[in-house]
Amino acid sequence: MVEITHYPSARLHEFSTRVFEHYGVPSADASTAAGVLAAADLRGIDSHGVARLHTYVDMLELGRINPRPKLRILRESASTATVDGDNGLGLVVGPRANAIAHDKAAQAGSGWVSVCNTNHYGVAGWYAMQGLERGHIGWAMTNSTKLVAPLFGAERMLGTNPIAIAFPGGAEPPIVVDLATCAAAYGKVEIARRHGQPIPAGWAIDRAGRVTTDPQAMIDGGALLPLGSERELGGHKGYALALSVDILCAVLSGANWGPFTPPFALRQEQPKRSVGKGIGHFFGALRVDAFLDPAEFRAQMDDLVRTFRASKPAPGASGVLLPGDPEREAEEVRSRLGIPLVGPVVDDLRDVSRITGVPFP
Amino acid sequence: MVEITHYPSARLHEFSTRVFEHYGVPSADASTAAGVLAAADLRGIDSHGVARLHTYVDMLELGRINPRPKLRILRESASTATVDGDNGLGLVVGPRANAIAHDKAAQAGSGWVSVCNTNHYGVAGWYAMQGLERGHIGWAMTNSTKLVAPLFGAERMLGTNPIAIAFPGGAEPPIVVDLATCAAAYGKVEIARRHGQPIPAGWAIDRAGRVTTDPQAMIDGGALLPLGSERELGGHKGYALALSVDILCAVLSGANWGPFTPPFALRQEQPKRSVGKGIGHFFGALRVDAFLDPAEFRAQMDDLVRTFRASKPAPGASGVLLPGDPEREAEEVRSRLGIPLVGPVVDDLRDVSRITGVPFP
Repeated sequence: MVEITHYPSARLHEFSTRVFEHYGVPSADASTAAGVLAAADLRGIDSHGVARLHTYVDMLELGRINPRPKLRILRESASTATVDGDNGLGLVVGPRANAIAHDKAAQAGSGWVSVCNTNHYGVAGWYAMQGLERGHIGWAMTNSTKLVAPLFGAERMLGTNPIAIAFPGGAEPPIVVDLATCAAAYGKVEIARRHGQPIPAGWAIDRAGRVTTDPQAMIDGGALLPLGSERELGGHKGYALALSVDILCAVLSGANWGPFTPPFALRQEQPKRSVGKGIGHFFGALRVDAFLDPAEFRAQMDDLVRTFRASKPAPGASGVLLPGDPEREAEEVRSRLGIPLVGPVVDDLRDVSRITGVPFP
Repeated sequence: MVEITHYPSARLHEFSTRVFEHYGVPSADASTAAGVLAAADLRGIDSHGVARLHTYVDMLELGRINPRPKLRILRESASTATVDGDNGLGLVVGPRANAIAHDKAAQAGSGWVSVCNTNHYGVAGWYAMQGLERGHIGWAMTNSTKLVAPLFGAERMLGTNPIAIAFPGGAEPPIVVDLATCAAAYGKVEIARRHGQPIPAGWAIDRAGRVTTDPQAMIDGGALLPLGSERELGGHKGYALALSVDILCAVLSGANWGPFTPPFALRQEQPKRSVGKGIGHFFGALRVDAFLDPAEFRAQMDDLVRTFRASKPAPGASGVLLPGDPEREAEEVRSRLGIPLVGPVVDDLRDVSRITGVPFP
């Protein structure tokens, strides 16, 4: 029986804001950073919300992250920029760099920003959604600590490297794509291990490179498989996507790529060498009205959404889903009932409160 | 026993060029179009080479495709354009629209072109590779006739909607990603049916929406599954990618999207309604030197490629592959030994020769 307590989103947002401020993060940045975590919790992506606050605190406590980064544009053109994040919190660097992409799009039709010298930025979908109100299609990617094996490989070489893309809707809600380029999240492997349950064949390999259904065998030096799993079901495609994200985020910006991407948490293994600065992000924005009359775009998007919803469901399914549906439904429920936090996460937040002196609500 | 004849690539290229010219395609366009087919054959993507020439001929013979399209820019900004392909051959419209994206990138750092009123454009990877020599990262997508089911759906609603991205290399070859966003190609289902063999669970569903291993059950009103197969292995992610490609190519340009995308071949079912003009493509270009010193980029790409190749292989695998490796190896062999064509493809080409009067080599 797992104990769950519900907290209003606004109170968690306030708590995280004050925790970031405690470490010298300027108020506006602290509020934005806390907002990225709050958005993940509201949208049901528990792994990327306040459950991670303690990890950010660990890094700030040790001075591993710069609370007041000065972002520097290393190169730029009308529609692109390379940004050095000055080793800031990803939750601070990310929103600012993303804003540069959208400002470029406002001027030049599109904007693309590759970022080095940054850290974990939370949930990719939040960034992609920031341009929706302006009628922009938003893109966000990041690289991350190695967990995923390449095609025909037996080692962790790539992160779970997410791709998020958000498309404005009309009367219907926006379509929000937010996917890690691996078959299944590492968190799911950990949950299976805790429950003593096997994992599906296709999620992971063991340290010898063989497909395994034993979660412990993945955790002990094995690796996750890319989206598509093994070769026969298209694992080479997920691998190619993960690698593309890595190049756009890290090679293009001058960050660490592949197995050299520094870890998010202190306890994780340090890379063998450094090939750049920090981790990397990649943001993009396309202005819809640079392509098409926005009213026509919205009308077609509504038609598309309704056409897909009206299509025939698979046996046992209640209907065809659009990307973003589960998160929007979670947001509707959680904005009313609060964010459900399990006991260990509440304990973590109380520990953060003890370390920082910020009262936990 | 399948009869195979080898033909030099240049002779097939010449034949296809003269066939396109026969229908009034201007010489330069005809040569480019034939070159896209020839590149697919050289790179081992047999399904997109001269094996498809007869289908293009069918459409040209009936006047369904405009051999001399006048491309029109419907909207543009410094880094974007929307192009009306005037119902031209995709093999003519695609290369021209792709060139616009790369020219925009030369000026504005990046270029993004969405195309409507076009037709099947061949292999996506060819387009992505066109900017490599200029130091551009190239992107190419297209939508296509419905074959793939959405998450929790039982109907064909999306095409196999490929994504191609090519990254310049240094001393090492470029990385060329070219993937359809479905679990496996329709051609593989057809081959299994011809050989009376089952298909792997995860490739397809039957007309009721149940996973099937019977290729005939997929062909008879079933559907392909997206990359990731069912929900448990990440099928929702492949679906989200396929839908994103559809929106970028077709909604953004004013083409037909989803189940309304017109078919490539005459014998295929016509959509229930029209929501735009023709099919859609989406091209992109990012200038590497707009982000980073190109020498540094090339050095890092070489380091990355060598690092991945040196990583531990899975049991039974000879080594870790990079995206583009199989195609480059095929090109090396086929440029020496010629393109291996099976009997039915040779028969098709002889039939094209008979219809057009162009002698088959």
